[in-house]
Order: sequence, then structure tokens, then C-alpha cells
Amino acid sequence: MRIAVLGVGLIGGSIGLAARERVDGAEVTGFDTDPDALATARERGAIDSSARSVAEALAGAEACFVCVPVSLLPELCGEALGAAGEDCVVTDVGSTKRQLVSLCADERFVGGHPIAGTETAGVGHARGDLFEGAPWYLTPGERSAGVLYERAFRLVQALGAQPVAIDAETHDRVLAAVSHLPHVLANVLVAQAGRTLSEEAEALPRIGPSFRDATRVAGANSAIWADIYRSNAPAITAEIDAALARLQEARDLIAGGDLAAIASWNDSAREDRRRLHQDELAAGAPVHELHVTVPNVPGVLAQVALALGRARVNIVDMALAPAPDMKTGSIDLWVAGDEDAERSRELIAELGFPVASGRS
Amino acid sequence: MRIAVLGVGLIGGSIGLAARERVDGAEVTGFDTDPDALATARERGAIDSSARSVAEALAGAEACFVCVPVSLLPELCGEALGAAGEDCVVTDVGSTKRQLVSLCADERFVGGHPIAGTETAGVGHARGDLFEGAPWYLTPGERSAGVLYERAFRLVQALGAQPVAIDAETHDRVLAAVSHLPHVLANVLVAQAGRTLSEEAEALPRIGPSFRDATRVAGANSAIWADIYRSNAPAITAEIDAALARLQEARDLIAGGDLAAIASWNDSAREDRRRLHQDELAAGAPVHELHVTVPNVPGVLAQVALALGRARVNIVDMALAPAPDMKTGSIDLWVAGDEDAERSRELIAELGFPVASGRS
Repeated sequence: MRIAVLGVGLIGGSIGLAARERVDGAEVTGFDTDPDALATARERGAIDSSARSVAEALAGAEACFVCVPVSLLPELCGEALGAAGEDCVVTDVGSTKRQLVSLCADERFVGGHPIAGTETAGVGHARGDLFEGAPWYLTPGERSAGVLYERAFRLVQALGAQPVAIDAETHDRVLAAVSHLPHVLANVLVAQAGRTLSEEAEALPRIGPSFRDATRVAGANSAIWADIYRSNAPAITAEIDAALARLQEARDLIAGGDLAAIASWNDSAREDRRRLHQDELAAGAPVHELHVTVPNVPGVLAQVALALGRARVNIVDMALAPAPDMKTGSIDLWVAGDEDAERSRELIAELGFPVASGRS
Repeated sequence: MRIAVLGVGLIGGSIGLAARERVDGAEVTGFDTDPDALATARERGAIDSSARSVAEALAGAEACFVCVPVSLLPELCGEALGAAGEDCVVTDVGSTKRQLVSLCADERFVGGHPIAGTETAGVGHARGDLFEGAPWYLTPGERSAGVLYERAFRLVQALGAQPVAIDAETHDRVLAAVSHLPHVLANVLVAQAGRTLSEEAEALPRIGPSFRDATRVAGANSAIWADIYRSNAPAITAEIDAALARLQEARDLIAGGDLAAIASWNDSAREDRRRLHQDELAAGAPVHELHVTVPNVPGVLAQVALALGRARVNIVDMALAPAPDMKTGSIDLWVAGDEDAERSRELIAELGFPVASGRS
């Protein structure tokens, strides 16, 4: 099967690698406006050949992946559809879908969005197993041909991903809630903390791990995110409106000073969080949080990771909270499954580090 | 010096351990309403002796640390001041200060707040080096005696911490910005995502690392946090009001669809974040973000940590982002100092993992 990949960055390059490794008879042609990226893609084996134009890339292709930033998708998808044969499915990998799907009302177009590596890290980071087990949203339009949708589905599956059909509007609403809104709030937090702290005559105090975690994604790559914010504005503004209302409620609750009501609000958040993370991390298996107190010297993290690794416990998630001196600290570990969690507790205790269940 | 510790949990126990290890002639008497905690504190060497009452603990004491949740502080600090001699400094470790300092308008009282281990993990996690290098806010009141403030200052320093004098109101305002507001926003986010996702007929999609990071502290221990929210309500509601205004601005900006304006807003957040984290993490030394793509199999994290450990690079901060299949993923590393960062890049590249600078 001839596959065209337009845009050979991290995602396009990984699609090429995965297709060449996993799809029988795949022959991948790459196109990119950056000749260096194209050369690297070829060197790394992400593509079989490079094309000098979109039309050349599409010649004889049965599938085309358009892998460029959101703002460039409408034009390039249109160009791909213009060059593609009647039997070629054209799909993309953009983070927002409603706008693009409505612009590409062609029976050969199926929107797509793999949940893997949104960075523009470039083809140097591309990997054939990037999509292994990752959800890959497919948003067929009303006019999408069944046989071409099926081809996109099977291809995505062959790349290692789990295709999930979803309508474009729902996709954008869900992503607004779990990705775009957190980015907006992170931006708000850093701006405000910057202002509050600089207003104080005091030297800036150390900021804590809660702030660091909450603002990890603040100011994420503008070249990608400005596009996402603009293209998903309706869903994002709806989420912001709802967040404004909830935040106002929280404000009034705190101002009211009713301890039981505040605790109950906070308990609900704890339960919401537990449910959401459990759904995400372990597809049903209960996720245990382990809180480990350690000296933060080189090697300790490795010691813990190796001990659990030898017992074949894979760490689902991990957060280090070094003390300000960087000598001491704690590790929060998330481990899925009752048995693995219990085993982890024992192993860590054997290393001599105090371990508690969850954040207490 | 006789030191009384009222409440021997993680913090009280660590104060006892640190004092016995580091303060010449320290003799620590502990009191706790929980006899088990008191027994464990004694077994662990956190206290020399246990008292059966506050008065007994304070007998002959030159310093008293009150280490109980915020809501219990006013009463217990009052009791301690009632029992303390004329030459005894009484201090506390609560996360909010304005309310308590105004209630304890006694020349022997100095408010305190070590930025270390806010968990109620119990005396089992106590460590003599918990405060090593940690900022320890001291909030003397207008009436605090100079000689007793100095004693608190020297004691906190002897425990390994860096005492920072700050007025109680500024303390509460700063903490509201960098700790309490992030907790409120995390609660808002999980509640809203829980609602948005459950409204969709689709199965819950995987949520991404941005959501996970932003909600790590959602629903933190209500027994501690309800008190914090209530006792710091004026500063927290002020921060929420400012956040509401900023969020409304962000909403209007996104709704407006001006790409350059959105990018500029996002760039400012990036700059705010860089500045805040740099101040926090390295006290001036530039912090480098390294983005490493790795197979998420047991041992890989250890391999990276060991390689950097051998080179004496200590990792300032780390975030794992496993792909949903838990087999692949990426590591974000924060390393302080240009040389260490460059060395880390080389070492990781030698291990065969692609490494990029920062989030690209």
C-alpha cells in the first residue's frame, strides 16, 4: 500500500516508521517544505522516498496522513484531496477537529487525532512505537465513505493505536475540558503568581510542588497552541464559562467560612480526581498512590526504580518533590493493581525508606 | 535547652529529631493527644520524654513548637502561652498565619511555617533532615520580644532551615497565590472534567499529562485543607477574584480569534513560568529542561538516573509522561546549570535516547 505522509515531524515521522515496520507492503512517500526534515526522515527510515510536491506524494497513494500544525491543515488537506485519487483516504493528526472536518466535506476525508506526543520535537524523536496502545480519535464526517473510513481505522490499528470513533464536536468539547482548559488555567496561574510575587518587597519565596505541577504546561509552544485556542474557541470558551461559574462558587463557599461545606466540596474533588485518574491510568484496575520519603541523592530514585523493575512492577506515574535544598525529598508513585501496590510497599520498606499509602 | 513539641506528627517528630541531632544540649519533651504517636515518637528518638499534659511539656521549656492542624492552633497556642514561662518562645508550624498571629498577641509568640512536608503522614515519616535547606517563614507580631524572636530564628537555623522573616499578612497573600489558589483550581478542574466527560455518551477518553499535572493536588486532605481555606479566606478570595478577572480576559481573547494576540498572551505565560521556576529551582542558576524519549520499560528510568547520578548531576525535577499503553513515554528533566545540562544531554544521548532541549 502506498502511503503519503505530508509533514515529517515527530508525528509524521513516527507514522512513517510504524507503517514501514508494521504494515505489510507499505511504501511511504514523504513530503515536507523543510528539506532537512525530509532528508532526516529518509536517513532514519521513516520514509521510503521523498516527493518534491504534494501531487507527487499523492501519486498512486491509497492513504494520506497530513501531519502539520492545525492552522496549516485546511489548506494542505484541501491540496491533498485535490491531488488524491478517488480511492485514497486522506486523514490528519490535528488536535482540534470540528473546523477542519466542516471544511473538508469530502467523502475521502476522515479527521484524526492520535493522543501521543503533541510536541513539535521533530523527526529526530520519531519512533515506530509512538502510537502503541495510544487512543487515536477518528472523526468521520457525514459524507465519509465507509470503505475509506474502514481503511483509516485498520491503518491506525496497524500502527499500534486504538482507534476511537467520535464526532468532531464531541472530540473538541472533551479535549477542551481535559487539555485546553488546563493549559489556559496554567497560563492564568503563572501570570497571577508573577504579579503577586513581584508586588511583594520580599524576595520571591520558594514556590511549592503544587504550583510547579499546576503550571507545568503554562506557555506551551505558541506555534501550536495559539492555533489550538483559535480553532477550538467555541468549545474552549464554553469550558471557561463553566470554570468561571465553578470558581465563583468556590470563592463564595470559602468566603462563607462553613468548614463542613468546604470539606465536602474538597472531598468531592478528591473523589472526582480518583475516578478520573483510575479511568485513565489503569482501565479499571485500582491505582494506588504510594508516598515515599527519601534522601534526594543521586542513585536513590534509581534504587527504587530498579527494585520495582526487578519485581516487574511498572510505575504508572511518578512525581518527585525535592526539598528546596535538593538533598531531601519525597517520591509519589502510582502503581496499578492491589498486588503490585502491596509488593511495591514491601520492596520500598526493605530499602529502608518510609512509605505511606496515598497522600495522607 | 528544653524544647517542648506539642503534636508529634511528621513535622513535630522531625523537629524533635532535628533538635536532638543538631542542637547542643537539646532535651525534647513531646505531648500528643494520641498516645500511639507519642510512643512511636519516643521509639524513633524524636523526643526524650513524653508529657501527660501541655503544662508538663512546657515545664522549664525555653522553646515550644506547636505542630497541629491549623484549626487547633489558636486553642493549643493559647494553652501553651498560659503554661509557658516568661522566657519561653512559643511558635507554630501552620500554613496560614494572619489569624493566629492576631489571636496570639503575646510577646512570647512568633508565628512559623516551614515549607516542608505538609502531609499528615505521621511520625513514622519524620526525619532529622526534613528541614535541611527549606525556607521556614517566621512571622513575628508587633509585640514579639526581640530576644525570643532571635531564639526562634537561631533554633530554626539549627534545625537546618533558612529562616525568612515576613509579616503574617504578606505570608498569607503569597501562599494564597502559589499554593492555595492552585489547589482551588485543581478542584475546579476535576469537578468540571468529571461533569463534561460523564455527559458524553462515549466511554471516558484517556486524559492527558497536562490534566494529570494540573490536578495532582485536587481534593488534598480535607482535614488540613478545609482549615487552610477557611483561615486564609480573605487572601484566597482576593486571589480567586483576580484569577476570575484574568480568566475572563483569556476567554475574551480566545473568543476574539486574534492569533497574534493569543500567541503573545501565551508567550507571556511562558516567560512568567520560566522566571518563576528559575527563581524557585536554582536560586539564579539557569534551569534547563530536557525532553527525553524513552521506552517506558522497568529499568529505563533507573538507567537515566544512574547515568546522571554517576556524573554527579542531581535532577532538580522530573516528570514522566507514559503513553497510555505504559510501554512508551517521555521524561522531562529539569537540570540546573549550563554545564550540568550539557553533560546530561551528552550522557542521555550516549544511552541512545533522543533528547531535546525543553518542551519544543
